[in-house]
Amino acid sequence: MSEGIIIKNLVKSFRKDVILDNVSLKIEPEKIYGLLGRNGAGKSTLMNIIADRKFSNSGSITLNGSTIHDNDENLSKVYLTSEIDVYPDKFKIKDLFHWVSDIYKDFNNDLCKKLSDEFKLNLNSKFGNLSTGYNSIVKIIVALCVPADYIFLDEPILGLDAKNRDVFYNALIQTYSDRPRTFVISTHIIEEIANIISNVIVIKNSKILIDDSTENILASSYAVTGPASQVDEYTDGLNIVGSEALGKIKSNYIFGELNDKPIPDTVTISNIDLQKLFVNLTDKE
Amino acid sequence: MSEGIIIKNLVKSFRKDVILDNVSLKIEPEKIYGLLGRNGAGKSTLMNIIADRKFSNSGSITLNGSTIHDNDENLSKVYLTSEIDVYPDKFKIKDLFHWVSDIYKDFNNDLCKKLSDEFKLNLNSKFGNLSTGYNSIVKIIVALCVPADYIFLDEPILGLDAKNRDVFYNALIQTYSDRPRTFVISTHIIEEIANIISNVIVIKNSKILIDDSTENILASSYAVTGPASQVDEYTDGLNIVGSEALGKIKSNYIFGELNDKPIPDTVTISNIDLQKLFVNLTDKE
Repeated sequence: MSEGIIIKNLVKSFRKDVILDNVSLKIEPEKIYGLLGRNGAGKSTLMNIIADRKFSNSGSITLNGSTIHDNDENLSKVYLTSEIDVYPDKFKIKDLFHWVSDIYKDFNNDLCKKLSDEFKLNLNSKFGNLSTGYNSIVKIIVALCVPADYIFLDEPILGLDAKNRDVFYNALIQTYSDRPRTFVISTHIIEEIANIISNVIVIKNSKILIDDSTENILASSYAVTGPASQVDEYTDGLNIVGSEALGKIKSNYIFGELNDKPIPDTVTISNIDLQKLFVNLTDKE
Repeated sequence: MSEGIIIKNLVKSFRKDVILDNVSLKIEPEKIYGLLGRNGAGKSTLMNIIADRKFSNSGSITLNGSTIHDNDENLSKVYLTSEIDVYPDKFKIKDLFHWVSDIYKDFNNDLCKKLSDEFKLNLNSKFGNLSTGYNSIVKIIVALCVPADYIFLDEPILGLDAKNRDVFYNALIQTYSDRPRTFVISTHIIEEIANIISNVIVIKNSKILIDDSTENILASSYAVTGPASQVDEYTDGLNIVGSEALGKIKSNYIFGELNDKPIPDTVTISNIDLQKLFVNLTDKE
């Protein structure tokens, strides 16, 4: 029954621009995904189409075997952070929370109150007068409290200060542990969510470049460092996704299998972090 | 003549909330400032008042001895990134750039073209259809190309991917070196601008907490690490702004002078970075 969201051959174009090019993807239950990609790669468009906020040109999306579009039961299981943008700017935050909790039975009012306190949110502020950071905070609170099973957080930490980013990451881990469900998080501050996400989806040039567990990805990512000529010789034929040099010392970044060649004494192999891997993978033409 | 922007006893309140509480500050010519503070501290409000986009309740602001408000000559010297939000959403980016370059004589059209290429900006996109990241990119480009002497960048890297953040930081350093002028940058990704800014202004609870050169601030910031009891004894009486513990080992973070006590052999003193200092300073109640 719980087979998750299955996306098949999704195409979205706008005039001459292809925004999503034949995207197929499975979003499984009870996992935390990082949705990564350069500016303009198509992340927001993908989230909006899955949440039935925008139309695709072709392709299919199902949740547990049925469509999401025009299907109230499935629509209630999917939540996208930008949904609250439909509320009038003059609404006070406390009224906005009341409305949302009227719409969603089982809205987590206790958590909503707790998070409002932790973020020091003024419930009497008007929605339209919020700063960028507090606008993100209201979106985060609603997203973590709605009873949906598939929560799409589109750049949740936009404008959040360092302390509030920590409040968010901790609240996410806690609520996931209390009630496991799926979160799909797009962000450009990758190093901060690397320890939270179990899976990574990378979109590049409108296509899916990577769709794998964080563990597998990190286990297939290497920095090979040493004298330039020996590094180049050892890494010849491998999937080199980037390199850096400092004087005569060079690092080649590898994504994928290493080979059976003996490793020269002057060459060391170390792991690279997700941010560095991402920048190198998505920057390559 | 070039004495910069002098802000004296600025007060801004909204109903019962005090947003800026008697803020006095000098913004000098040809310096790059980081404007830091928690969400809701008053950073955007301060920038908007200086740029004459919002009114204060009391206090004075002058540029080179004259007011900015109602003073066309001084107004033309001050630019705030959110100014382009007044352009209609249906404007194409190329038309928006034409308008801006018509308004500002000496708009740097060459740099505008160069940066549009580097950011891979589609000049035929409509302003209102831009993603969060590309909206920030358009604001950055205009801010770096207008001929103003005091440029206020309010969260310029909002939604920018890691590569585009680098493009921005490098472009800022280059254009500053070509034509030194003042930039005031608010951001929550502090470690990334720590090497670019010459001065730091920290707002906390509506007041100025720190206003000093980056060099002085970093030279007055220490982590004292060792066995908890010896660390606490050595740092007794110092300005402890935060601490972290791992088992029996503790670090106390100090902002200000150390003392003349002998340093125990088991205790080490090291520097802390701006992000860590900021989080500790602004998190303290």
